[in-house]
Amino acid sequence: MVIVMAPGASDAQIDAVVARVTEAGGEAFVSRGDERAIIGLVGDIDRFHGLNLRTYPGVAEVVRISTPFKLVSRQHHPAMSTVYVGETRVPIGPDTFTLIAGPCAVETPEQTLAAAEMAQAAGATLLRGGAFKPRSSPYAFQGLGETGLRILSDVREATGLPVVTEVVDVADVELVASYADMLQIGTRNAQNFTLLQAVGEIGKPVLLKRGMSSTIEEWLMAAEYIAQRGNLDIVLCERGIRTFEKATRNTLDVSAVPVAHDLAHLPVIVDPSHSGGRRDLVVPLSRAAIAVGADGIIVDVHPHPDTALCDGPQALVDGDLRELATVVRQFPSLLGRAPGQPLGV
Amino acid sequence: MVIVMAPGASDAQIDAVVARVTEAGGEAFVSRGDERAIIGLVGDIDRFHGLNLRTYPGVAEVVRISTPFKLVSRQHHPAMSTVYVGETRVPIGPDTFTLIAGPCAVETPEQTLAAAEMAQAAGATLLRGGAFKPRSSPYAFQGLGETGLRILSDVREATGLPVVTEVVDVADVELVASYADMLQIGTRNAQNFTLLQAVGEIGKPVLLKRGMSSTIEEWLMAAEYIAQRGNLDIVLCERGIRTFEKATRNTLDVSAVPVAHDLAHLPVIVDPSHSGGRRDLVVPLSRAAIAVGADGIIVDVHPHPDTALCDGPQALVDGDLRELATVVRQFPSLLGRAPGQPLGV
Amino acid sequence: MVIVMAPGASDAQIDAVVARVTEAGGEAFVSRGDERAIIGLVGDIDRFHGLNLRTYPGVAEVVRISTPFKLVSRQHHPAMSTVYVGETRVPIGPDTFTLIAGPCAVETPEQTLAAAEMAQAAGATLLRGGAFKPRSSPYAFQGLGETGLRILSDVREATGLPVVTEVVDVADVELVASYADMLQIGTRNAQNFTLLQAVGEIGKPVLLKRGMSSTIEEWLMAAEYIAQRGNLDIVLCERGIRTFEKATRNTLDVSAVPVAHDLAHLPVIVDPSHSGGRRDLVVPLSRAAIAVGADGIIVDVHPHPDTALCDGPQALVDGDLRELATVVRQFPSLLGRAPGQPLGV
Amino acid sequence: MVIVMAPGASDAQIDAVVARVTEAGGEAFVSRGDERAIIGLVGDIDRFHGLNLRTYPGVAEVVRISTPFKLVSRQHHPAMSTVYVGETRVPIGPDTFTLIAGPCAVETPEQTLAAAEMAQAAGATLLRGGAFKPRSSPYAFQGLGETGLRILSDVREATGLPVVTEVVDVADVELVASYADMLQIGTRNAQNFTLLQAVGEIGKPVLLKRGMSSTIEEWLMAAEYIAQRGNLDIVLCERGIRTFEKATRNTLDVSAVPVAHDLAHLPVIVDPSHSGGRRDLVVPLSRAAIAVGADGIIVDVHPHPDTALCDGPQALVDGDLRELATVVRQFPSLLGRAPGQPLGV
Repeated sequence: MVIVMAPGASDAQIDAVVARVTEAGGEAFVSRGDERAIIGLVGDIDRFHGLNLRTYPGVAEVVRISTPFKLVSRQHHPAMSTVYVGETRVPIGPDTFTLIAGPCAVETPEQTLAAAEMAQAAGATLLRGGAFKPRSSPYAFQGLGETGLRILSDVREATGLPVVTEVVDVADVELVASYADMLQIGTRNAQNFTLLQAVGEIGKPVLLKRGMSSTIEEWLMAAEYIAQRGNLDIVLCERGIRTFEKATRNTLDVSAVPVAHDLAHLPVIVDPSHSGGRRDLVVPLSRAAIAVGADGIIVDVHPHPDTALCDGPQALVDGDLRELATVVRQFPSLLGRAPGQPLGV
Repeated sequence: MVIVMAPGASDAQIDAVVARVTEAGGEAFVSRGDERAIIGLVGDIDRFHGLNLRTYPGVAEVVRISTPFKLVSRQHHPAMSTVYVGETRVPIGPDTFTLIAGPCAVETPEQTLAAAEMAQAAGATLLRGGAFKPRSSPYAFQGLGETGLRILSDVREATGLPVVTEVVDVADVELVASYADMLQIGTRNAQNFTLLQAVGEIGKPVLLKRGMSSTIEEWLMAAEYIAQRGNLDIVLCERGIRTFEKATRNTLDVSAVPVAHDLAHLPVIVDPSHSGGRRDLVVPLSRAAIAVGADGIIVDVHPHPDTALCDGPQALVDGDLRELATVVRQFPSLLGRAPGQPLGV
Repeated sequence: MVIVMAPGASDAQIDAVVARVTEAGGEAFVSRGDERAIIGLVGDIDRFHGLNLRTYPGVAEVVRISTPFKLVSRQHHPAMSTVYVGETRVPIGPDTFTLIAGPCAVETPEQTLAAAEMAQAAGATLLRGGAFKPRSSPYAFQGLGETGLRILSDVREATGLPVVTEVVDVADVELVASYADMLQIGTRNAQNFTLLQAVGEIGKPVLLKRGMSSTIEEWLMAAEYIAQRGNLDIVLCERGIRTFEKATRNTLDVSAVPVAHDLAHLPVIVDPSHSGGRRDLVVPLSRAAIAVGADGIIVDVHPHPDTALCDGPQALVDGDLRELATVVRQFPSLLGRAPGQPLGV
Repeated sequence: MVIVMAPGASDAQIDAVVARVTEAGGEAFVSRGDERAIIGLVGDIDRFHGLNLRTYPGVAEVVRISTPFKLVSRQHHPAMSTVYVGETRVPIGPDTFTLIAGPCAVETPEQTLAAAEMAQAAGATLLRGGAFKPRSSPYAFQGLGETGLRILSDVREATGLPVVTEVVDVADVELVASYADMLQIGTRNAQNFTLLQAVGEIGKPVLLKRGMSSTIEEWLMAAEYIAQRGNLDIVLCERGIRTFEKATRNTLDVSAVPVAHDLAHLPVIVDPSHSGGRRDLVVPLSRAAIAVGADGIIVDVHPHPDTALCDGPQALVDGDLRELATVVRQFPSLLGRAPGQPLGV
């Protein structure tokens, strides 16, 4: 942390800042220039924040420097992590490219199985599907709940695909974890800290979507909440941010992938379905995600998108899926990545 | 809802849309132009959404028209509502202007009482104070919990001010409601739907902050989640939205006050402390809030902001408070509003 | 400027930065902490920028501190400036509140005169009106050009109101200045630097609208472009910024008024018509603008908004104008401001 | 265009709207529902806009439907266009992938030649370089002007690479066009309509950068301004938009490439240097741009970035360039694109 004094700040004002920092157990280094002085602080940043040095007389600005996340930071853990999902240990990490696919919402056993088979044919090694759906409107379809979880579990039995599914309520974490292989935190819960802590304690891998208006730093801080409870099996998921552009539902921030990889040792995947909100963008955005360096993608598929109860307009149908399958076969190998196949039990 | 067909869409394609809508219990009205046809839909909009008409051949665009919220809408409830808080029934509504003030976080009995007395001297008739604090970083001060609630309760006893305090977890709703007179939902939980439903069931007034990236429509929809559970004692709170501008912590969207008043019958207040994040902006933004038509404001005060554990830089001190007291006395009367005094038991 | 070195940066790396800064005529002060070193720079910031110190080995971050604008800054000119417009010297500044009103676009002599009389009746002391209109679409009405300027000049003759009008092209600056009393730079030209320099040289007061996506710092820097050419008669105009919210055309950033007043000595006014884009918001936003401390407002009026060639939906009609007149009479006096009446020749 | 009437609008109100539209030469089709009526309009949309139907009694909303650009639209020109640059006719279009590279600013003949040779070695077939630089601060380096153009022309002579360079002032368009093979319009001039018209008349290909806060629709409308003056040799360039995220200078909107390709027949390229503003992001974002379907990229290179006068931190150096060369050789072929080699005179 650096304290910038105003031009003309007095020695007494500078001394007051130094005294407060020292009192709080930190060290303060003063640099005097012609126009103004600068004070460098070393020690416990969170402690310094509590001092409210910005309000001291003569202080012009307080500049924070150290990264505020620790456990997920690459600073003390430079090697990239791989997260393994399910009994068959499907990897998500730096050496592989993993396709996660399935229906946005679980509706019926038939629809879910059909979607899973489409996903698997396209190269998916993990199944996504929503049993609990957070919806902006209370009048929209909210998911089948435990019935949906049971369907997902049956489809895992039938296809061998481990299951990724969202949890929206602390009270449901144990229930969802008893069925799922990986718990998803959705964009609307990106700063629901009690939920983050709850999934941090349950001992299953977590797929953490970026809040639609979270900075990359806030996203990593959300991951830190999970990590702090003892769970480092976290996969970050970029899914588009909210901007002024309305041609797409959100703006896919592909730069977030290399930026997050640079700051944290966690895998990063991309959701090309929810970011664009348009079926015709899913394949191009999937290519962009692979090319920018994502460790995987998560894609909506549906056997009959025109009757889907949720986000049908963005679900891939058969023809698109064949194109996606080709993309997933060809592009990752250019970046030295193998398919995200299960390692086996 | 209006369906816009692409130029050159065939009669069969138009008929398919009409058939689907009719089948779903709606009515469809076709208007044919030289270049393209337009289909107006009448009936259950939510139902129509499920049809995914955007994916039908020949459909260029689907335009939603009806407002998606119902219970909080002025369409069927044109008169503005007043919400009464506490046993002494402090009003928030169209005829009054209510000042809510207190410390961002409850730290000690002394600090809370001192802040409450400052607030009261400035004209506040409700006390704010955080016992549970949602913080971006897991390393930041998270609040005193139940101890904080007890302090708030004691200070209510001493000052007569009803208490507004935040709840961040479904598991705490009953506990918080047993101490507080009004439950606050913070900006990070603006789309935590299970929490919204839980406070909707507990039967106490709710202060619903706008999500920092929620549209006004999404904010009203969040209110609808509460209303749906039988609680219409909801006060909306504009607290700044996330934009590209970095001179202020958030951008206070004053236009949201008249826009929300136009759409919903709920009171709307403004938080000038958290929107600007700067002490020097609190009084000017308070004046703007009153002038634009807000039904109240909620302001941070602290007896010793330089040692505050949370958001000290924006807390008002004595001198500013006297200025605020003058503003709160003078400006609302120009708009025909009386002070928000308790009606008595 | 402060250089933050990475943890573990070597002495040689620190020395290299110091050497480069010294070579460039600056001074460098090194503070060493346990984890990392910080280097404070004193001297010519623009020069330092050219050094690209961010690219030096061991450098983690470069933090800019000094304000980058000079002539418009309050740092060396703490007293607020008043700008006088027209031969009758209508003031815009800290002691007055000035209402500027008129039609968005000049259409006919009759419409312009009628609008000017409406404006004057409401208390306006300056007339606005567009002869050159920058429009997003090349197919939209682009203004009457010199014919429009002549109409404005005739209406000034008839009413005594000095004229504010927009210039969109360097080639037109002399022509527009020969008719107008104040030149307006619109939001789309907020970073058209050659146009800013051209109006800086012409010797007439300038009304500088904020770019719809300009930060406050960029806005002041645009003013600096004008000031650098010898013209300090600049009035800043906040007119809404581009955000994710779509209920209003733009989001009026009222906080920008006190923030700009804090940084620059220039007057700041607000455009409540173009920010909201809705007639029903003009009066509430005008009240908010006055209350937050604006030195004036600029408002669209039109005798027949339903046939206006430009932005009719936001133009005030008779009834609203009477309300606005009351507001402009009552609110500024609470803040100690007199009406912006001409001082006389 | 669709007019949505308020619930309870009277027949007389509906008739008034229909009468006005018919009077203006359009056709109006009324659909009556249980709750409200909808009126579909067919005819000249721009004309309808002028009618300000939103202000008519009983009108709740006006919804625009038709695309507002014509000449650049794919609606009447479904085949994608190829633009040829320079005497040797370097193509930018659907069958090729074209690398444009060079220094952000022309500084000296040696630096420019060295950068051009680096660019060519990496596979570039067009040279970029700024002689006129629009800078936010009037105190920053503004470019060498005509001296810079002469250097670019000499380097073209030496290397055979056609030259792309920015023009910032209508007064310079002829001068710049006399040296350059392609004129660039920068992001700050994206709505400088007189400049757009001027380059539309000069008869050289234009590289049109997206405004940093332009919607895709506004960007295409800017292209329409150029096209209207008889020049359809326009290449669109996505260069990042302004959002709340601050880890990157701007947020590269890769989705804009397929969206613009879907709406307009013009080639679309990407600028990975200015969007990220960080050297370490240039190669990953270049890969993403190719993969999403861009027709080319434009990249900053500099022989000595640590002494660059402009944007050094993002300029590629030798090692990165070799990586970029590999990417440009491998990725486009997966999408069936050949290198953008000159066709020859």
